[in-house]
Amino acid sequence: MNEATFTANNLWILIAAVLVFIMHLGFASLESGFVRKKNTVNILFKNSMIISIGLLTYYLLGFNLMYPGDAASNGFIGFSGFGLSMPEGAAGAIEYADGAYTYWTDFIFQAMFAATGATIVSGAVAERMKLSSFLVFTLVFVSLCYPITGFWKWGGGWLDARGFYDFAGSTLVHSVGGWAALACIMVLGARKGKYTSKGIQAIPGHSMPLATVGVFMLWFGWFGFNGGSVLSADPVAVSLVFVTTCLAAAAGAIGAFFTSYIMFKSHDLSMVLNGILGGLVGITAGADQMSPVDAILIGAIAGIIIPMSVVFFDRKLKLDDPVGATSVHLVCGIWGTLAVGIFGAMASIGQFIEQLIGVVAIGAFTFVFAYLLITILKVTMGIRVPEEDEVKGLDVSEHDMEAYSEIDTDYAFAVK
Amino acid sequence: MNEATFTANNLWILIAAVLVFIMHLGFASLESGFVRKKNTVNILFKNSMIISIGLLTYYLLGFNLMYPGDAASNGFIGFSGFGLSMPEGAAGAIEYADGAYTYWTDFIFQAMFAATGATIVSGAVAERMKLSSFLVFTLVFVSLCYPITGFWKWGGGWLDARGFYDFAGSTLVHSVGGWAALACIMVLGARKGKYTSKGIQAIPGHSMPLATVGVFMLWFGWFGFNGGSVLSADPVAVSLVFVTTCLAAAAGAIGAFFTSYIMFKSHDLSMVLNGILGGLVGITAGADQMSPVDAILIGAIAGIIIPMSVVFFDRKLKLDDPVGATSVHLVCGIWGTLAVGIFGAMASIGQFIEQLIGVVAIGAFTFVFAYLLITILKVTMGIRVPEEDEVKGLDVSEHDMEAYSEIDTDYAFAVK
Amino acid sequence: MNEATFTANNLWILIAAVLVFIMHLGFASLESGFVRKKNTVNILFKNSMIISIGLLTYYLLGFNLMYPGDAASNGFIGFSGFGLSMPEGAAGAIEYADGAYTYWTDFIFQAMFAATGATIVSGAVAERMKLSSFLVFTLVFVSLCYPITGFWKWGGGWLDARGFYDFAGSTLVHSVGGWAALACIMVLGARKGKYTSKGIQAIPGHSMPLATVGVFMLWFGWFGFNGGSVLSADPVAVSLVFVTTCLAAAAGAIGAFFTSYIMFKSHDLSMVLNGILGGLVGITAGADQMSPVDAILIGAIAGIIIPMSVVFFDRKLKLDDPVGATSVHLVCGIWGTLAVGIFGAMASIGQFIEQLIGVVAIGAFTFVFAYLLITILKVTMGIRVPEEDEVKGLDVSEHDMEAYSEIDTDYAFAVK
Repeated sequence: MNEATFTANNLWILIAAVLVFIMHLGFASLESGFVRKKNTVNILFKNSMIISIGLLTYYLLGFNLMYPGDAASNGFIGFSGFGLSMPEGAAGAIEYADGAYTYWTDFIFQAMFAATGATIVSGAVAERMKLSSFLVFTLVFVSLCYPITGFWKWGGGWLDARGFYDFAGSTLVHSVGGWAALACIMVLGARKGKYTSKGIQAIPGHSMPLATVGVFMLWFGWFGFNGGSVLSADPVAVSLVFVTTCLAAAAGAIGAFFTSYIMFKSHDLSMVLNGILGGLVGITAGADQMSPVDAILIGAIAGIIIPMSVVFFDRKLKLDDPVGATSVHLVCGIWGTLAVGIFGAMASIGQFIEQLIGVVAIGAFTFVFAYLLITILKVTMGIRVPEEDEVKGLDVSEHDMEAYSEIDTDYAFAVK
Repeated sequence: MNEATFTANNLWILIAAVLVFIMHLGFASLESGFVRKKNTVNILFKNSMIISIGLLTYYLLGFNLMYPGDAASNGFIGFSGFGLSMPEGAAGAIEYADGAYTYWTDFIFQAMFAATGATIVSGAVAERMKLSSFLVFTLVFVSLCYPITGFWKWGGGWLDARGFYDFAGSTLVHSVGGWAALACIMVLGARKGKYTSKGIQAIPGHSMPLATVGVFMLWFGWFGFNGGSVLSADPVAVSLVFVTTCLAAAAGAIGAFFTSYIMFKSHDLSMVLNGILGGLVGITAGADQMSPVDAILIGAIAGIIIPMSVVFFDRKLKLDDPVGATSVHLVCGIWGTLAVGIFGAMASIGQFIEQLIGVVAIGAFTFVFAYLLITILKVTMGIRVPEEDEVKGLDVSEHDMEAYSEIDTDYAFAVK
Repeated sequence: MNEATFTANNLWILIAAVLVFIMHLGFASLESGFVRKKNTVNILFKNSMIISIGLLTYYLLGFNLMYPGDAASNGFIGFSGFGLSMPEGAAGAIEYADGAYTYWTDFIFQAMFAATGATIVSGAVAERMKLSSFLVFTLVFVSLCYPITGFWKWGGGWLDARGFYDFAGSTLVHSVGGWAALACIMVLGARKGKYTSKGIQAIPGHSMPLATVGVFMLWFGWFGFNGGSVLSADPVAVSLVFVTTCLAAAAGAIGAFFTSYIMFKSHDLSMVLNGILGGLVGITAGADQMSPVDAILIGAIAGIIIPMSVVFFDRKLKLDDPVGATSVHLVCGIWGTLAVGIFGAMASIGQFIEQLIGVVAIGAFTFVFAYLLITILKVTMGIRVPEEDEVKGLDVSEHDMEAYSEIDTDYAFAVK
């Protein structure tokens, strides 16, 4: 490959990393919009810490656990040492990855993905989980759990060898976050006042503009998430991925629009927003394998799934998930992964079975890991804030501040 | 062209598409900031749907109506079939468009523009239009009206043959949206309480931070809107467009700053914000033809126009436009299109006349189309919410939710 | 250099300019979130004007004052004439800057940096400074002060000749803004009610979501600020800069997290946000010279500095800085500049002394310039709003509007 093509490829992966970075603002906005005012600072604080913890732990061990190289791994696990060390000399950096991008580019792009799993959990456990326990959960989950299952496919492990396909992470990122969220809300329990003898209480979020900004930011970032996963600036491949990604998102909105109207007889903004996200999660596993028509079908089905799944988790399973993270990331993540065996260039019964094996294997490992971890934290540190703190809100109890202070200090001191 | 240059060109158009995408968040933020709290969810819902409807209809028929190719069109209209089908083989995709970008890239960049027209209407009809009728209007307008006049110039139709020039859409995108907005607010009427026997009531928007975020997002996206319209990564052309675009926006702010201070004796944030947008709309038709000095003059005049136009529509014509969309997109869109005949490399009386012909032809077609469409909707579905719903706000009446819920469910059930 | 590499290099600097542009939204959001509700429009107005004034004055004289070329300068000052004029012919544009990017690209990237200094001042003087005086201060400061010290290093002046190093502007941008902020708040005095006989009053900001959005936008933009300062798309250099920038930001968050917890026994969101910014400012002087470990240490120390510096300015010096701009930009700017002599590829006692000379020389010039300017404005125009306006808030007194209007005009006219 010549120098100029190398430069363009490398540039695209770097820009894709920037786009994935801003998804962390997307999650912070979405999740804080969907919770009550009194728990807003807590969400913002958690999301500021998650990206920071994620980058540092991925630097320290995650990257070398997920991509240990053949020498330092078997099919199930590997590790090539703490920290980063660029292959020697400039040539080492440039010839890395078949000349598509440098060692540093590879690290920063992958690092931006790593923290996403924990961000998904953040929304599901909102409004009741202890901050300190959540940060420890994030630290362990992002350092160990995410890179191990990531290695199974993207690092060249046993699922990759079998033929499991997950282009940009419907399973490796989204359902992994979703399984962890599911384990956590099962152990943590519902918010006070959510499920009572008088019925199920809807708890509306405090800011729809914030939630909408979040979803648009996530869609914006998804161009890098999926487009960057081509791992080069290959013109046909990246542009096809842009088209399938966008059409699936749009179809997800339309699917959720009609389904939620039929179910609730109203035009529910949060369902349309989650429909967009469901479409995006759904297309992620096969964004490079689908035609536009396939993408529309996958997205529309994801959009239809969203309101049904939200109602199922909330009313049937009575699992309290304030932002719908399990429906968006777990259910649509599974759907998108299986869809690779149903639609597009790879569709076949054999592939469908491989997809199912991947979903089950990664799901089982992640769920058990997260369930054990959150249970250990429950027994040791405790995972739930005291009831009076939940009533006051976590902003005051954990952070000693309000999201929207109305204090006017001039008057505090002034004699009127 | 060699592979590496092709890759860089294609990459830039894709990144430009991402930047144009985020303009939809810009519009959603701007418009929701400029309406009252009680109609916020409605705006956010409409804007989430518009981009989704726009992408899907442009996929289904808009793209092939706007760019049918010579074989399937005369100078006024053409159509090359439903859906997308990439020219056969990878070479087809790569050799498409003189090797500057792929077929998919062309589609996704153009598709991002398509929904913008309806977004402009969304702000103008805010706070009183029925959601269902608005969505039908969007569907028809984006599918049919926008691509037909788009074809006249960008698709190689009769205005292109005559010599009309519109680099990135002062007319084809912005004034088209502005004409449709004008037709709609004429048929729809003013908001309740706006024009009464007691005088004209100013109705301030509920969130200036949201509006400001929107304007900065729009400016940010405009680098892709204008810069991507070079249709390659040509270094001199794209960088000149960046310079003219930015200087016009800055001059628009300064023009509106002084004019609104002279008119109102106050420093009106909404005028400065709309001045920036006016400058951007104004430079769009000739961003590649202007020197920096030309760009500053065009932008400054657009900024001076804004407060005068807003007052003219509001107080003289008594046309109620909550966000100033007609002043920004229609008036400054016309100004910018005519300015191509006055300033810069193409300035001449002959060119000015061609610009005028384009403005009038596209304006007449669009206005009549939109006027008929909204009138048909008025007679059939109805276009206005009942008066009591307008008082309650569309968030509750159309969506059964509030933008900023203050419900604290803990207390809803708790015995105090 | 071949055409394709030139295209890719030029494209990256343009995209970097777009990223730096959005930092102005970051500052607007951060600063408005950290002030009281009643002064929000004022911040948004100032930040909309600063970028506009900055672009126009940099076009008019700043660019040619900062980069006059050898012929038109000595080591301390130079000027090559008003306005922009591209070197003749397309070849002139292309061969400019050793073929890395065009003349227009150079201007727009540098212009985006120029307004940043004044933006930093904006936050520090919030809630009490007269708008008109602030705008005049911005005009003079951005036109003259910033480009002169910028010339000393980046324009090839005496500090550059000595060996002072400042990769992307820890000193040339951030500490310059910080010194000006310090001079202004010393002359301006504290907000009413801040320091009284009854003690020091904490004045919490009115919107933590807005502040958090601002910090994430700034981090997002910093990829362009530091990454673009490579001045080409060189794959190894740009990707290393991305890695060091991100790790320093993350370490800044962690450093501020622990330090503020030890100091205040609470999890203070504003400290973690400022810790991220401190880490970013700190790495900026040497982002291309550091290993990942160096970057983490520099960022962590910056994060540790933040809460201590904020307390020192607030409680010891009694200098009222509503957003912590002096701690983030001045103190961490100095720290980052000195760190180039302590860590990384350039570390040596000689280099440390050069760094110190640069910090002192630029600091002295900027502080004296800003102090004289603000004092002249104090004597002539006045720099402080009347006390009753400060109590009412600047939104009403300077702009005649509210940030969050709750007026419902239907009711204003309706007879109930």
